[in-house]
Amino acid sequence: MNDFSQRAHDIIEAGRSLYQMGLVPATSGNFSARLADGNIAITVSGRHKGRLTEADIMIIDAEGAPLDARTPSAETGLHTQIYKHFPETGAILHPHSMNAVLLSQRYPDFVTLSHYELLKAFPGITTHATSIVVPVFANDQDIPRLAGKVQTYLENNDAVYGYIIANHGLYTWGRTMADTLRHIEAFEYLFACTLHSGG
Amino acid sequence: MNDFSQRAHDIIEAGRSLYQMGLVPATSGNFSARLADGNIAITVSGRHKGRLTEADIMIIDAEGAPLDARTPSAETGLHTQIYKHFPETGAILHPHSMNAVLLSQRYPDFVTLSHYELLKAFPGITTHATSIVVPVFANDQDIPRLAGKVQTYLENNDAVYGYIIANHGLYTWGRTMADTLRHIEAFEYLFACTLHSGG
Amino acid sequence: MNDFSQRAHDIIEAGRSLYQMGLVPATSGNFSARLADGNIAITVSGRHKGRLTEADIMIIDAEGAPLDARTPSAETGLHTQIYKHFPETGAILHPHSMNAVLLSQRYPDFVTLSHYELLKAFPGITTHATSIVVPVFANDQDIPRLAGKVQTYLENNDAVYGYIIANHGLYTWGRTMADTLRHIEAFEYLFACTLHSGG
Amino acid sequence: MNDFSQRAHDIIEAGRSLYQMGLVPATSGNFSARLADGNIAITVSGRHKGRLTEADIMIIDAEGAPLDARTPSAETGLHTQIYKHFPETGAILHPHSMNAVLLSQRYPDFVTLSHYELLKAFPGITTHATSIVVPVFANDQDIPRLAGKVQTYLENNDAVYGYIIANHGLYTWGRTMADTLRHIEAFEYLFACTLHSGG
Repeated sequence: MNDFSQRAHDIIEAGRSLYQMGLVPATSGNFSARLADGNIAITVSGRHKGRLTEADIMIIDAEGAPLDARTPSAETGLHTQIYKHFPETGAILHPHSMNAVLLSQRYPDFVTLSHYELLKAFPGITTHATSIVVPVFANDQDIPRLAGKVQTYLENNDAVYGYIIANHGLYTWGRTMADTLRHIEAFEYLFACTLHSGG
Repeated sequence: MNDFSQRAHDIIEAGRSLYQMGLVPATSGNFSARLADGNIAITVSGRHKGRLTEADIMIIDAEGAPLDARTPSAETGLHTQIYKHFPETGAILHPHSMNAVLLSQRYPDFVTLSHYELLKAFPGITTHATSIVVPVFANDQDIPRLAGKVQTYLENNDAVYGYIIANHGLYTWGRTMADTLRHIEAFEYLFACTLHSGG
Repeated sequence: MNDFSQRAHDIIEAGRSLYQMGLVPATSGNFSARLADGNIAITVSGRHKGRLTEADIMIIDAEGAPLDARTPSAETGLHTQIYKHFPETGAILHPHSMNAVLLSQRYPDFVTLSHYELLKAFPGITTHATSIVVPVFANDQDIPRLAGKVQTYLENNDAVYGYIIANHGLYTWGRTMADTLRHIEAFEYLFACTLHSGG
Repeated sequence: MNDFSQRAHDIIEAGRSLYQMGLVPATSGNFSARLADGNIAITVSGRHKGRLTEADIMIIDAEGAPLDARTPSAETGLHTQIYKHFPETGAILHPHSMNAVLLSQRYPDFVTLSHYELLKAFPGITTHATSIVVPVFANDQDIPRLAGKVQTYLENNDAVYGYIIANHGLYTWGRTMADTLRHIEAFEYLFACTLHSGG
């Protein structure tokens, strides 16, 4: 397989997993992976995320410009932003996590995840005796404006592993798709604990 | 495959999905699809909805009269009504959604779904900054009488994507079966958010 | 297949379904089916209910006496009682339903299920505008004593579709295994509605 | 298959089950099985627990020293302790049970499971009319120190079937892997009942 096919395969398999977890209902969500040449493989807008094929994945450049006539996800600007800010990032997943949505209603500014062993799923965390902060941004159909708020946050904070868009979902990323899926599983677990513990 | 077989295949696959989602327990629910000639393929009464075969699907005309000796779903009149009112509708799904049932106990008149990104799963909605209203009708074994109440509502409201029958379930429809399944997934997600957020 | 093999096959498939539904964890639960000769096929004590084979199913007579050297379920007396009281019963399922357990803590005497469309899954019920009562019996390791209490109830009540043993599980039955599985699905749905509605 | 391959197969299959149950998200958890020669097969640190292969399982001696250059689970000392204290133990499973985590927030010292029929899933329990106590230990990255607290508890209490590490997960064990999986299913069920009953 060439580089695009390998990254497309990663995206297809990730979509199948996330759909089975109930995280991308009704064609929602979008996924991407960085190619070796710096371009980005990203899901075409509006496709069923549990049954993706290579034809549902297109290539954009690092600025988000499509390399063919199709329309990438409306939220492409949030993907290119993350790849620019975190040069080591290889994959991004954006599910419409219901747990993230419910938490954003309870905590409109940020969610703090504290003292769970599973925090060690995130890079650089070696003890449960710590906290991570997941910022919550108000939803906005104006993606450049939303990206501006995310940018300000990223530039002023370290150790950001993901963020929530209120009543919308989660963005998380990692060095590889496997790492990014591990972050999804960790966030879902920690979000559910936080919701159920009332904490 | 001929037209009937294609639409029957859509219904069979939809039934399998909805059964796996827990939406049609105990032979409940009923499904239909409009044929090219204006007749309607619809599930025979009382069959297991997760294991349908073509033999469990019959043809009725646009008025609901069966074209063979079998008995269509008792709620056939609710299907023919939707096909008449929405000429573009190609498929209807009626699951016994527990989320819809629980919401109907909390909101006996209508459920308002507001400000969720997933609202964009419904046709014509391009922003989360909106609301949709899902009417709730009291359950009634007298289907013509129930259909009368639905008719009054449909004639007096735009942008109706589905309705709830209290303590019973959800009706939703779409241009194709894929569209209708997308509406099911969106409603289930939005109903669950509404139940869990207390909103 | 001979009669025993057919009924054993029914039991094996039912076990697989109930295990997947989470209703028979940790080798719990027991199942039976009446044979054409009046004997009863029943699960051997202590087997994994999601992976039954014919070797895990034995034959007892109508009084509960084993026809080979193996030990049938400890609760065999509750099965033979139901077959005697309801001559039309062909199959019995006893899952350790968590919903039944939680309801028994809230309602130690009986659970009333009212006004749900899904009540029509039970034989003879043709409208949602009704109620059924599910008696709750205190758990007892003395099966004859427990059966005595069940007997008194059955002799004094009509339209009994199942009963709950407190902190233990559900017994339900039907003409065929398919009917009994339909009752399981209906009870699980109605129990969950009742728990979540606080009703 | 040789002894190692058989025990590795048990671990691989247990991992698949526990992952499907949502108990080992994000590469969390660790599993082991005692070999006939007294050494222990144990999962290598950091592997995906739902897709283990033999290459993800290594051998340590009874003191926890690795027999090859790989790094066993960081919590190896908790495994060797259990094998020493319970000579009949053949397998240990440590999932990151969310139910255990939530219970540990409510009951920081111990969880009492009382009067459930499913208690009979544990060895030596023949009636529901009993209770078992599951101790809760504060989480600690210093495994020898944590093991010391566990040791004191084990030496002073009988009938210990498992323990919870707060905000972290469950340890349970059994004579065989099948027994240990039965304990997992029983604990998950009883933990969920306890959480939902408010008991």
